[in-house]
Amino acid sequence: MSELPEVLVLPQKPHGIPVESLVESLRERYDGTVSLARTNDAIDEALPDASVVVGNYISTDRLDRADSLELFACSYAGTDHLPLSELTERGVTVTNAGGVHASNVAEHAVGSLLSLIRGFFRARRQQRNHEWRNFQMGELAGRTVTVVGLGAIGSAIARRLQPFDVDLRAIRHTPEKGGPVDSVFGYGEAEAALAGAEGVVLACPLTETTEGLLGRDEFDLLDPDAVVVNVARGGVIETDALVDALRWNHIRGAALDVTDPEPLPSDHPLWDFENVLITPHNGGYTPEYYDRLADIVVENVERAVESREWTGLRNQVVP
Amino acid sequence: MSELPEVLVLPQKPHGIPVESLVESLRERYDGTVSLARTNDAIDEALPDASVVVGNYISTDRLDRADSLELFACSYAGTDHLPLSELTERGVTVTNAGGVHASNVAEHAVGSLLSLIRGFFRARRQQRNHEWRNFQMGELAGRTVTVVGLGAIGSAIARRLQPFDVDLRAIRHTPEKGGPVDSVFGYGEAEAALAGAEGVVLACPLTETTEGLLGRDEFDLLDPDAVVVNVARGGVIETDALVDALRWNHIRGAALDVTDPEPLPSDHPLWDFENVLITPHNGGYTPEYYDRLADIVVENVERAVESREWTGLRNQVVP
Repeated sequence: MSELPEVLVLPQKPHGIPVESLVESLRERYDGTVSLARTNDAIDEALPDASVVVGNYISTDRLDRADSLELFACSYAGTDHLPLSELTERGVTVTNAGGVHASNVAEHAVGSLLSLIRGFFRARRQQRNHEWRNFQMGELAGRTVTVVGLGAIGSAIARRLQPFDVDLRAIRHTPEKGGPVDSVFGYGEAEAALAGAEGVVLACPLTETTEGLLGRDEFDLLDPDAVVVNVARGGVIETDALVDALRWNHIRGAALDVTDPEPLPSDHPLWDFENVLITPHNGGYTPEYYDRLADIVVENVERAVESREWTGLRNQVVP
Repeated sequence: MSELPEVLVLPQKPHGIPVESLVESLRERYDGTVSLARTNDAIDEALPDASVVVGNYISTDRLDRADSLELFACSYAGTDHLPLSELTERGVTVTNAGGVHASNVAEHAVGSLLSLIRGFFRARRQQRNHEWRNFQMGELAGRTVTVVGLGAIGSAIARRLQPFDVDLRAIRHTPEKGGPVDSVFGYGEAEAALAGAEGVVLACPLTETTEGLLGRDEFDLLDPDAVVVNVARGGVIETDALVDALRWNHIRGAALDVTDPEPLPSDHPLWDFENVLITPHNGGYTPEYYDRLADIVVENVERAVESREWTGLRNQVVP
């Protein structure tokens, strides 16, 4: 095992989880050395010899000094913020943390949907008043629910919704691929997929196609009892249209783990709706996050050492 | 179809749903006559000729005047409140509304479990303060969850939990029957089934065996991060032991659709825990309730007319 390269961890603290937990998760799984560079000096000293670096970012400046770098394992699911072309030029393989959040975000989405349909936040208001008074809850069973995006997260959501007796629709770029749902639509058929829907779960990337996907026209298409859950990106919803749909009771409620703007300004009207759940973009972060990231990194390093090439890796972004 | 007997509906209003909705649900399904007796006089007049009565209760007094009664279709799942021996003596078949609630209560249980694990009620507190601040959510995946009771409701809960990657245990009277879970225990092995559990969902009837099933010793057995959901009856939990477990942070939280005492007195400490969700025993009631009850009643009447005997019916309690 002496050929296992050292894994260098850069300072990071996604969502407040200390980097030490990541180092620990890596050490539990890896027979090679895992070292943490905390300060700029320590990073400058370690980078020239490092072949594997785990971090949320690397600048081109630092990249210029990382002469031995083979693998940059990004600890985020998204890699748009990285200097990808510079990394590719230098022959560095980049992997991401995609899929790490899928189960997690799916729980968040299904839990949000149920909370709003069952009236849990109304129940909480009564509870604050110590008020035992029956009210009529809604039911998820029998609803038409449209999942937008069928990547790792959207598919995980659909699989968890299957036993709830819902009519599951999905929208994805490649509808011909199908999915764990009753019917799949392309983005060009979004209107048909949203018409009459009593639940919408947004789990797509933010692209030119998906930006503002839910606007005034689309809110009008939904069933008046519809619940909208956004675990994608804030920009997939036109915020003003959502506020109006809520104000005029055109939908039952919304659960937003992401908003536009984000963070939500403290004077924003969305905060105060009883039928809106706001979570601060933390649907994907749990204590298991670093464990799953470490699984990917260690599996990839071992695979590369075995095959003697830094490609064909799990979650590889480039080359 | 002229032989289809008239169905007489007695006044009732379970959980505030007007009896007219039940009449409507029956009429949508039934080719015979459905009539509603609203007043005592109307009931007295209609009872002697009624062969099918739908209600939540019938007194022995009224029973004495119901000479033609063949079927009393109780609109509640429980029938302990009915004069069952008198009904049996008079050769009246009794059916209940069992199973009507299963999907509904199962949604409630899974939604409660997720809300507590994901910290939704903490999120709501931050939301009231317009505070966008990350906090670490918990995760259902990987947890050991013990479902107590595997009747229609417990099984529906287990089936909905299956795709969430949990280790599912169940406790039931007849463990040899198995169930949609990873392991099944008898009530004599409750300790083993509860040891280390990170989720407990109570969905059993209240019996001598289940009364006080969760007491001080059992709360000690659970994982400190455990979430307890009660959709059974308040008496299955020793309330004082639960309050102490919450006060001393021995469990993560609880969701109670039933309490002991019930209704919960307004000065009870359970109201004010942030990590306790109280709902006023309405987990089973939704707009679909009467539709499902009507399905049972109409199916049974049609079956009895076909077979010319008022037995072998769906949800039959006696004889």
